Amino acid sequence: MHIPPGFSSLNGELAIAGKPVSAWVEQAGDTPLFVYDRGLIAKRIADLRAALPAGVDIHYAVKANPMPALVGWMAGQVNGLDVASAGELRIALAAGADPARISFAGPGKRDRELEAAIEAGILLNLESAGELERAAGIASRLGKPLRVAVRVNPDFELKGSGMRMGGGAKPFGVDAERVPALLARIDALGAIFEGFHVFAGSQNLSAEALIEAQAKTLDLVARLSEGAPVRPRHVNIGGGFGIPYFPTDMPLDIFTVGKALGEKLAARPAVLADTKFNVELGRYLVGEAGVYLTRVVDVKISHGETFVIVDGGLHHQLAASGNFGTVIRRNYPVANASRFDALPGEPVNVVGCLCTPLDRLAEKAALPVTQVGDLVAVFMAGAYGLTASPTAFLGHEPPGEMLVG
Amino acid sequence: MHIPPGFSSLNGELAIAGKPVSAWVEQAGDTPLFVYDRGLIAKRIADLRAALPAGVDIHYAVKANPMPALVGWMAGQVNGLDVASAGELRIALAAGADPARISFAGPGKRDRELEAAIEAGILLNLESAGELERAAGIASRLGKPLRVAVRVNPDFELKGSGMRMGGGAKPFGVDAERVPALLARIDALGAIFEGFHVFAGSQNLSAEALIEAQAKTLDLVARLSEGAPVRPRHVNIGGGFGIPYFPTDMPLDIFTVGKALGEKLAARPAVLADTKFNVELGRYLVGEAGVYLTRVVDVKISHGETFVIVDGGLHHQLAASGNFGTVIRRNYPVANASRFDALPGEPVNVVGCLCTPLDRLAEKAALPVTQVGDLVAVFMAGAYGLTASPTAFLGHEPPGEMLVG
Repeated sequence: MHIPPGFSSLNGELAIAGKPVSAWVEQAGDTPLFVYDRGLIAKRIADLRAALPAGVDIHYAVKANPMPALVGWMAGQVNGLDVASAGELRIALAAGADPARISFAGPGKRDRELEAAIEAGILLNLESAGELERAAGIASRLGKPLRVAVRVNPDFELKGSGMRMGGGAKPFGVDAERVPALLARIDALGAIFEGFHVFAGSQNLSAEALIEAQAKTLDLVARLSEGAPVRPRHVNIGGGFGIPYFPTDMPLDIFTVGKALGEKLAARPAVLADTKFNVELGRYLVGEAGVYLTRVVDVKISHGETFVIVDGGLHHQLAASGNFGTVIRRNYPVANASRFDALPGEPVNVVGCLCTPLDRLAEKAALPVTQVGDLVAVFMAGAYGLTASPTAFLGHEPPGEMLVG
Repeated sequence: MHIPPGFSSLNGELAIAGKPVSAWVEQAGDTPLFVYDRGLIAKRIADLRAALPAGVDIHYAVKANPMPALVGWMAGQVNGLDVASAGELRIALAAGADPARISFAGPGKRDRELEAAIEAGILLNLESAGELERAAGIASRLGKPLRVAVRVNPDFELKGSGMRMGGGAKPFGVDAERVPALLARIDALGAIFEGFHVFAGSQNLSAEALIEAQAKTLDLVARLSEGAPVRPRHVNIGGGFGIPYFPTDMPLDIFTVGKALGEKLAARPAVLADTKFNVELGRYLVGEAGVYLTRVVDVKISHGETFVIVDGGLHHQLAASGNFGTVIRRNYPVANASRFDALPGEPVNVVGCLCTPLDRLAEKAALPVTQVGDLVAVFMAGAYGLTASPTAFLGHEPPGEMLVG
C-alpha cells in the first residue's frame, strides 16, 4: 500500500489529524464519511509557496472540493478562488470570500449566471465572443462594470496530462488568432480588461512537461499582450499539478517547476513587466488531504475470491471505482483503517454496496484479514470525490463530510 | 441519426407525447429537462406481455429510474417492483406500491435497511450467509416474519452483456454449491423461503444469448430446488434485455426470446411445476421512453470545428458522455429538437457546460445548423440518466423531470 504522506497509526488504527478514525466516525455519527485534514492542506500550501517564485499567487479551483466549510477556510489561505458555476459562486460568497478575488470560468455560462457574477463584481474569464456580447448586455442593463479576462485556448498541450485541455479544437476559451479581435471588442464595449487565463491540462506529474507548458503559456500571453489595447494586469497560468494516485507514480517536483518559472518570469518581456501571475490549483491542494471512510457490511467468498462489501461505493467515489475519465481501472490506495498496523493477508476485493458490477473500490488489494464492522479507508479522496460522483444512484443516503485538524 | 421509435415531428419541432418540446419546456419552466413518455412505456410493457409466455410476470427494477411519479405509475403497470436500497424502498412505499410485491436485492444491505424491509414485509433477496444471520436476528427482535429468496451467483454468464453479473467470482448472490447449506439454514431459522433470484447480465441485444442464459437459469434453479427443504414459490430469472443505443445496434427480438422461454417452461421438471416466474427489467422498460432536453448557450468555432455548448451535460447524462462503464465513447442519438426536420449541416460537437473535457454529449454529430437558444435532445435518457450522474459536479442546479402522456 502506498499511503499518501501525513497519515499515521494510533492504537492500531489509522489516525487523521491526530485522532483515530473511529473517533471521527463516532463524532460524525455514521459512515460513509469523508474526512479532510486541514493541517495537510495548510502544509501543502506552505510547501507550494516556498517552491513558487515570490509574487506568484495561488488560486483554489473550487470545483475540486466545494464543501462550504473548506471553501470558506481556503479563502483565507490562498489569494483567490476560481468558480465554475453560479452555484460555486454562491458557495464562495456565502463563505465570506472577497468578490474581488473570485473569478468565474466555464464554457456554458447561462445569462442568469453572468448576471449573478456581474452583480457581485466577479471577474469573468471569457470563453467566446458570444459570451462577451451577452455579458456586456447584462452589465449595461444592470448598470454595473464588466470585469473580464480572456481565456485563451492554447495552441500547445500539457504533454502527458490526465486530461488535455489545450491543443487543437477545444470548447474552452478562444483560439489565439481570435484574441486580438476579442480584445478590440472588449475595448469598444468599455469593459475592464484584466488579463488572460490559459489552462493547458491537468493531473500531470512531470516537472519537465509543466515547465514547458508554463514557458509556452508566458510566450503566448506576451505575444497576445503586444497588440492589446491594454496591458494585462493579471495572468492565470493554470494548474495541472498532479498527485500520485498509483504505486508507480512519482510525486511532482514542485521546486524544479518553481525554479524554472522564476527564471522564466525574471526574463519576461517588458509588456508583462507589471503583470501579476497566479497558478490555479484544485486537486493538488486538497486531493491527498482527504480520506473516504466506509464500514464493512459483509465479507464473503465466491469461487475462491474474498469480497469485502462496504456501506459506501462508487456513488461517492466514482473516480476510485475507475468509472470516471479512466480507461484502465487501477486501485487507489486503500487500507483497513481499523487494523492499520496489521500485516496483509490474502488479497481481497473491496466492493461497494451498489447492485452493479461497476462498484469496485479495490481489486486484489493486500488488506489484513478484514471483518464485518471494520472501517475501510480509501485515500486521495479530497478532490473530485463526493461531488464528482452520482450520489443519488440506487437511492442511498448522502455521506458525511468533516473538515478536521 | 437513429432516433428511437415513438417520436415525431410537429411544426418542425421534436414532439413527445403529441406536444412539441418547446411546450414541455415552457410547462416545466426551465432546461435542462428530462421528459418521460408514459405512453411509450405502456406500449413497451404491452409488447412484452404479448411476447412473454402467459403467466410470466414482469417486475420493474426501480434503480433504472426512481422518479417517484414514474415508480408510482409503474406499480400499477407491472407485477412487482425490485428495489436496491432502503431509499428506493421508501420511494416505492410512498408511491403506494403493495409491499407484498416488492423485493430487495443488493450486496451490502445495512442493518437499518434490513430492518426497514422486514418491518414493511418485503421479500429479501439474500446475498450471503452472513446477511441471512443478520436479517434473522432483526426479524426475531422485531417479532416479524422473514421472507427470503436466495440470490444465486450463476455458474455461467450472459454472453456479450454490457455488464456481466454472473460467471466466476462475483460479489452478487451465493455460489451455487453454497446454496444447499443456506437453504438448510433458512429452514432451521424458521424463515419463509420463497424462491430464487438469478441475474446473469445486463444490456444484451442477442436473443440467442438471452435464450441460452434463461435456459441455464431454469436448469440451475431446478437443480437447486431438487434438494431444497421447500419448493420455490417464485423464481426471478433476471433481465438483461438490451436497448439499441448505437446505429449498428439491432433491437432485441423479444418474440424469439419469449417463444423459447415458453417452450423451456412447458418442459420444466416437476419440482418447478407450481413455481411462478418473473423477469426483472429496468432499462428495457423505460430507457427509450426518456428524452433529455437542454438549451444551446453558445456556438463557437475552434480550429475549424464547431462546438455547440448546452446548459446541460455529463452531470445529468454521465453515460451519454461516455464516462460510465464505457471503454470507447460513442454518440447516443442526439438531435436539434427545435429544428427536427431540418437537413444536417457540417458535423458539430455538442458539449455540456462543465469546465472539463470529459463533458461531451456528441462528437461530430450531423445536426442542422444550430443557434443559441435551440433545444438539443439526447435520446435513450429514460434509464440510468439523472440518478446515475454526478448532479452536484460543478454546482449547477438540478434538472427538471416530467412524466407526460
